[in-house]
Amino acid sequence: MQENDNGVHPLDGALALSPVDLRHWQGQTSAAYANMVGPFGGTTAATLLAAVLGEADVLGEPVAVTVNFAAPVADGPFSVVTRALRTNRSTQHWFVEMIQEEATVASATAVTALRRETWGETDADFPQVPPPGELSPPRPAKRPPWTRHYDMRFVDGDPWGEGTGGPWGEGSGGHPSRSRLWMRDEPPRPLDFLSLTALCDVFLPRIFVRRPRLVPIGTVSMTTYFHATGEDLGAVGSEHVLGVAQANHFGRGYFDQSAEVWAPQGVLLASTHQVVYYKE
Amino acid sequence: MQENDNGVHPLDGALALSPVDLRHWQGQTSAAYANMVGPFGGTTAATLLAAVLGEADVLGEPVAVTVNFAAPVADGPFSVVTRALRTNRSTQHWFVEMIQEEATVASATAVTALRRETWGETDADFPQVPPPGELSPPRPAKRPPWTRHYDMRFVDGDPWGEGTGGPWGEGSGGHPSRSRLWMRDEPPRPLDFLSLTALCDVFLPRIFVRRPRLVPIGTVSMTTYFHATGEDLGAVGSEHVLGVAQANHFGRGYFDQSAEVWAPQGVLLASTHQVVYYKE
Repeated sequence: MQENDNGVHPLDGALALSPVDLRHWQGQTSAAYANMVGPFGGTTAATLLAAVLGEADVLGEPVAVTVNFAAPVADGPFSVVTRALRTNRSTQHWFVEMIQEEATVASATAVTALRRETWGETDADFPQVPPPGELSPPRPAKRPPWTRHYDMRFVDGDPWGEGTGGPWGEGSGGHPSRSRLWMRDEPPRPLDFLSLTALCDVFLPRIFVRRPRLVPIGTVSMTTYFHATGEDLGAVGSEHVLGVAQANHFGRGYFDQSAEVWAPQGVLLASTHQVVYYKE
Repeated sequence: MQENDNGVHPLDGALALSPVDLRHWQGQTSAAYANMVGPFGGTTAATLLAAVLGEADVLGEPVAVTVNFAAPVADGPFSVVTRALRTNRSTQHWFVEMIQEEATVASATAVTALRRETWGETDADFPQVPPPGELSPPRPAKRPPWTRHYDMRFVDGDPWGEGTGGPWGEGSGGHPSRSRLWMRDEPPRPLDFLSLTALCDVFLPRIFVRRPRLVPIGTVSMTTYFHATGEDLGAVGSEHVLGVAQANHFGRGYFDQSAEVWAPQGVLLASTHQVVYYKE
C-alpha cells in the first residue's frame, strides 16, 4: 500500500478525528480531497460516520446512514458532535453534526446494529461488464483534486469521455443517465465502512451524464444502506468495486440518483441514493 | 369527501398536532391507523413532517425527508420537537424528534427548499398497467386497521393474494419482489405532502412478496425525495397514485426496498427508499 510520507493513507488523514470531550470530536478538511469548493462530499459523509464508529459505546455496525449537506464546508477545522438518540438491544440510533463557526454545516443520522445470519437473497442485478484491468482510467482532464484519489474505470457513462454521447459523455449503455464504473481508493486501501461511504459519493452527478453538461450542482442529502459486514468488506481488500448509478427524475432544481456498489464477485455491498441541487 | 363524524378526515385526525411551546408540538396516535404493534409507520413519518410544515418560519416545500424508527411508538400521546439546523437563501435543514416518556421513539431530518423552473426529465419508467377501475381491491383478510384507510388495487405482487405466487403471493410481474399498485386514502382525500409521505410507506414489506412469508418486520429508516410541488399534488386531487416497489437485497436481518410513486398521468411525484429489519 502506497502511503503519505507519514505512513498514513490520505483518506485516513482526511478522516482523522481527535476526541475533545464526551461526544465531541475535532477534525480538519484535507487538501487531498478538495472539491471545486470545500471538501469532496464523500469525505464529509465518511467523517460523520467515523465519529459514530469512534464512540466507545457504539453498538454493532452501520446499517443506514443519511447525510444532509446543509452548507458549504469551509477549508479548515471543524467540530463533530454526536448524540446517541436511542440504544436498543440490537440497534442504536445516532444524530451527528459537523460544526464550523458555531453553525451546522452538515448533519447525519446513522442506524447501527448487531446483525446475525438469516435467509437472504439479492434481487438487484449484477451486470456483466469487462473487468477493471481491461478498461482505461479516464484521460487526464481539468478535474478537482479529490478525483485523483480514486482509480475510476468507466464501463460507460464517463462524464469526462470524448466519445459519442455529447461534449462530456461517452453514452451510457442504453440508459440516458447511467454510469457503470470500477472504482477504488488511489493509492489502494483496504475497504471498510468509511471508505465505502466515501465511494458511495464517487459516482459523478447524473446531470453531467444526462444533459450532458457541466452545470453547478451540490448534493443536499445522501442515504446509504449497508448490506455487508465489516468482515465482508475486509474480504474485498483493496480490489476495485463496481458502481452502477442512474437518475430517476430531474426537475425544478433537484434531481435524485440511485446506485449499487458491488464486490467484484457479485456481492452487493451497499445501495445508495442522493438528491442533488442543480442550476438551470 | 367522506369524513369522520367531526368532519375531519381520519388521516388529518391522526396527524393533528397542537403547539405547546416554541418548536414543541403535542399529538397522539390514532386507532384508525393502528398497526400490529403501535401506529402505521407512514403516519409517524407524516407526523414528523407535519411538525416541520407547521413551523411559521418553514422555507419552501419538502425536497427530502428521512425518518428513523428508533423504537416502537406506544399508543397514546407524544411530543414532537423540531430544530431548524440551518437556514440558507433557498434551502432549510430540519431535525425532528418524536418523544414518549422522555425517550426518542422516532427522528427525522428534512430538507425544504424554494424551487424554481429548470430543465427537467424523467428517467424512471412509468409502467403501462390497467387503470384502478379495472382492478379489484384485495379480498377482506385479517389485516391491521391502517390498511382499511387505503384503497389498494394491486396490478401484481399482492401479498394478500391467493394466486400462483405462494401462500401469500400472486406473483409479481416477472420480478421476484416487485409490487405495482394503485393506492389512495380511504375515504378519498386530496393529495398533499403529508398524505404522500404516508403513502410512501403503504407498499408492504417486500419480504412478504419475496419469500413469500409473513415474518416479523419493522422499518428502521425511510427516505423520500419529492419531485412534485404542492401545486402538482393538488392537481392529482384524490385520484389513485401508482406505486412501484421492489427490493434490492435481503441479508443478515435487514433488507432494503426502493419505490416510485406516480400520478395517473405518468408524472413522478416521489422516489422513496427504506431499510427494514426482519427475523429469520
